[in-house]
Amino acid sequence: MQTAKPGQPGSPPILSRAKELVYPSLREAVDELHPGIRHMVEYHLGWIDAEGRPDSRGGKSVRPAFAVLSAEAAGAPAQTAVPAAVAIELVHNFSLLHDDIMDQDRERRHRTTVWARYGVAAGIISGDALVVLALDQLLRRPEPAALAAARRVWADTRDMIGGQVDDLGFEERVAVTWEECVAMEAQKTGALLACSACVGAILAEAPAPVVEGLAGFGMHVGLAFQAVDDMLGIWGRPEVTGKPTSSDLRRSKKSLPISAALEVEGPGRDELAGLLGDFHTREPAESELERAVELIESSGSRERTARYAADHLRAALEMLDSLPIVPEAHAELAGLARFLGERDY
Amino acid sequence: MQTAKPGQPGSPPILSRAKELVYPSLREAVDELHPGIRHMVEYHLGWIDAEGRPDSRGGKSVRPAFAVLSAEAAGAPAQTAVPAAVAIELVHNFSLLHDDIMDQDRERRHRTTVWARYGVAAGIISGDALVVLALDQLLRRPEPAALAAARRVWADTRDMIGGQVDDLGFEERVAVTWEECVAMEAQKTGALLACSACVGAILAEAPAPVVEGLAGFGMHVGLAFQAVDDMLGIWGRPEVTGKPTSSDLRRSKKSLPISAALEVEGPGRDELAGLLGDFHTREPAESELERAVELIESSGSRERTARYAADHLRAALEMLDSLPIVPEAHAELAGLARFLGERDY
Repeated sequence: MQTAKPGQPGSPPILSRAKELVYPSLREAVDELHPGIRHMVEYHLGWIDAEGRPDSRGGKSVRPAFAVLSAEAAGAPAQTAVPAAVAIELVHNFSLLHDDIMDQDRERRHRTTVWARYGVAAGIISGDALVVLALDQLLRRPEPAALAAARRVWADTRDMIGGQVDDLGFEERVAVTWEECVAMEAQKTGALLACSACVGAILAEAPAPVVEGLAGFGMHVGLAFQAVDDMLGIWGRPEVTGKPTSSDLRRSKKSLPISAALEVEGPGRDELAGLLGDFHTREPAESELERAVELIESSGSRERTARYAADHLRAALEMLDSLPIVPEAHAELAGLARFLGERDY
Repeated sequence: MQTAKPGQPGSPPILSRAKELVYPSLREAVDELHPGIRHMVEYHLGWIDAEGRPDSRGGKSVRPAFAVLSAEAAGAPAQTAVPAAVAIELVHNFSLLHDDIMDQDRERRHRTTVWARYGVAAGIISGDALVVLALDQLLRRPEPAALAAARRVWADTRDMIGGQVDDLGFEERVAVTWEECVAMEAQKTGALLACSACVGAILAEAPAPVVEGLAGFGMHVGLAFQAVDDMLGIWGRPEVTGKPTSSDLRRSKKSLPISAALEVEGPGRDELAGLLGDFHTREPAESELERAVELIESSGSRERTARYAADHLRAALEMLDSLPIVPEAHAELAGLARFLGERDY
């Protein structure tokens, strides 16, 4: 998921603006963590390297950016969104820390993952501490809108976890339908992006139709974003993704292109299902991975997934057009959506 | 931690009363879980066995019992405490699911633990789902007291996690002082018991001094309870504890009797420290475990820990005596505290 970094050419300015706005508070929150795990979290966030030296390899701040823009869309100052932006960024990183263990991913953003470096116990407890810290950002605040935001963040965190349960369950299954995969991704990725795209408006006390419209926009963006990510999981170059080639195939993940290929009847499907079954039990050979990719491509699934991503991006932009929001924020939301839905791979 | 079971002779009646009162709501909450993990949680809770058949091996419902009594202590009906009792029981079980992985415990309550049976990923995601479900019990409620209760539960969950960070860190260290161990246990065990003992009163909108007094009582009970548990971790009989003999020694846990023994200077301490260091890197021989127990006993640490437990039990009862609470609830709180602080091992 690494294309243009914030502040680099091609990256929407809101990404670096959100980072500048939200990071001081995120830093303060992380500083509250127990010293026994703080350095692991800082390492995970890309703020320090494995030797404890300052680093700057953090994520793209996509979720804080949506949160900030959603406050501005509702006519509130950017600052209004900060507690929710911090909360969501912490929830997101809680899920990354735990997912890396569950998926046995040893590398993320070109670095060794926390559990692979510090052990499974460290990865579990760091994630636990982050999810508690996350909600605390909103729970501790006195204003009623913060409670509404807390409820929204919590409901979407719950959906996100449900999506991860499905995702894990799908690895055990031979075939998963496209529809099942869409439903899983709506929960696993869509929910927290929908949350990001409306929670600033909740804190700004925007009317319900605006809040729900922004959430719908965020859901479409999330689905497009995840579809592109699924393509990166098969065709992404390791130097771009920070992960091994065909990482999703190696783990028998049932992503969109894979589920689509498994829906096209014929000998190709049987061969692909056989290979994926094998990959679930042993390390695949490079030639087998190449064969699996070939089978997916010849099924037309790459095009189907790309079309689906484009459709959701279009739906997101149309939904945005229907909302009575501040034009500058509208333009930035649209730009960010396009940036995420049209990523290069 | 198994002595008299609820409903058995010697068990305070509040344990079965709390179970009857709280379990229907706990069941409803668990029913909301994703079907992909619900059966694992039900297995963990002792409601079904590994084959999915109904079972009844649940825990003692200590925390729900305190929560219910704390509402009654403040003059409210027992039912007032239920949402908080469910929340705390879920937080407690979230911590058990994750701690079992972190501590690599393969057995709990005489059964295989969830991660040992269903895998590490299953244990992690089940715990994650429970902690989200837990707070949701209070967040979703409209009354202002529920928000106050949610904040309290969350603050204590945070402390509990801090205690677990310390506990894990202590395993890596040769020696831990008695004071450090006390501070760790106050967080790891005391916080959630303090929470249980006051959260019903919070929902009953009791005055702050009553809430804080009950929390203080719960903290003392928690410290006494954990000290007894620490003794069980060395001297407990497996048929009583459901764990292997000297389970804490096997894992180089720095519990109170162990930290106390490491504070008594002399050749015994050096030998014990050497053994514990070895146990951290390899499976101990039975003869080595026996020798470690002998060294701890000859240091006088067993008596020191027993005295400490008795002191905290007494402090708990004194604190209770100072509070303007309903006499019947007072008597039941005192009885439950005694039951926990004077467990047989």
